[in-house]
Amino acid sequence: MVEIEARKEAASRSARLNAVFAALADPTRRAIIERLSRGEARVTEVAEPFHMSLNAVSKHIRVLEASGVVERHRKGRDHILSVNTRSLDEVDGWIERTRRYWERRLDAMERLLRELKKDHKLGPKDRKHGSK
Amino acid sequence: MVEIEARKEAASRSARLNAVFAALADPTRRAIIERLSRGEARVTEVAEPFHMSLNAVSKHIRVLEASGVVERHRKGRDHILSVNTRSLDEVDGWIERTRRYWERRLDAMERLLRELKKDHKLGPKDRKHGSK
Repeated sequence: MVEIEARKEAASRSARLNAVFAALADPTRRAIIERLSRGEARVTEVAEPFHMSLNAVSKHIRVLEASGVVERHRKGRDHILSVNTRSLDEVDGWIERTRRYWERRLDAMERLLRELKKDHKLGPKDRKHGSK
Repeated sequence: MVEIEARKEAASRSARLNAVFAALADPTRRAIIERLSRGEARVTEVAEPFHMSLNAVSKHIRVLEASGVVERHRKGRDHILSVNTRSLDEVDGWIERTRRYWERRLDAMERLLRELKKDHKLGPKDRKHGSK
């Protein structure tokens, strides 16, 4: 049972990542997130700077809401939009994990290069370069 | 001219982000990146764990290459794949920037809550809780 629960959790995490990455793959949707990252705003305020119909912007907002990146709450008559940073945390965590291995390898390579440089400080190539 | 260059650069950065996010929006492609994040590998090695044809996996690899996340080089007869972490840096940078504002707001809210807690330490609610 525990394994089934763990698999379900992994599957829903994967589905969330699919939705968030797909939501971020559009420049208009990224611009909406950038706007909301400076502060929550009404739907009409978010739509204003774009050269497209309110309907077209609303479609993008719905994609963002479905992915969990953007949240909507009501304040009187207004629909207020805000960014849910926790959804971005998950994406960021994924990138971080996959990058760590390479960073370690690059660090090791850098150390090796530094060691080689130190050993060859008076080597032929360096002298040639220095005599120019 | 400088402005045109800056705009071109912004446009191509935006196009790269579109491609990288779209590439990451698929679980098979993420699994391929996870595999390669543990070390570079041949195409056939990458394809092995997936329950799909080599052709299907190759299509996913081509999407990853087009986005710049995965690179291919030849070693004799083999095609070796590796992750280009710089492409992930760009994506990570974008997420980081949009998140910063909200983190600052949450930090400010947390400070405010802590102040309020301190001021109300001997308030009616706290005392009631304490006498239980």
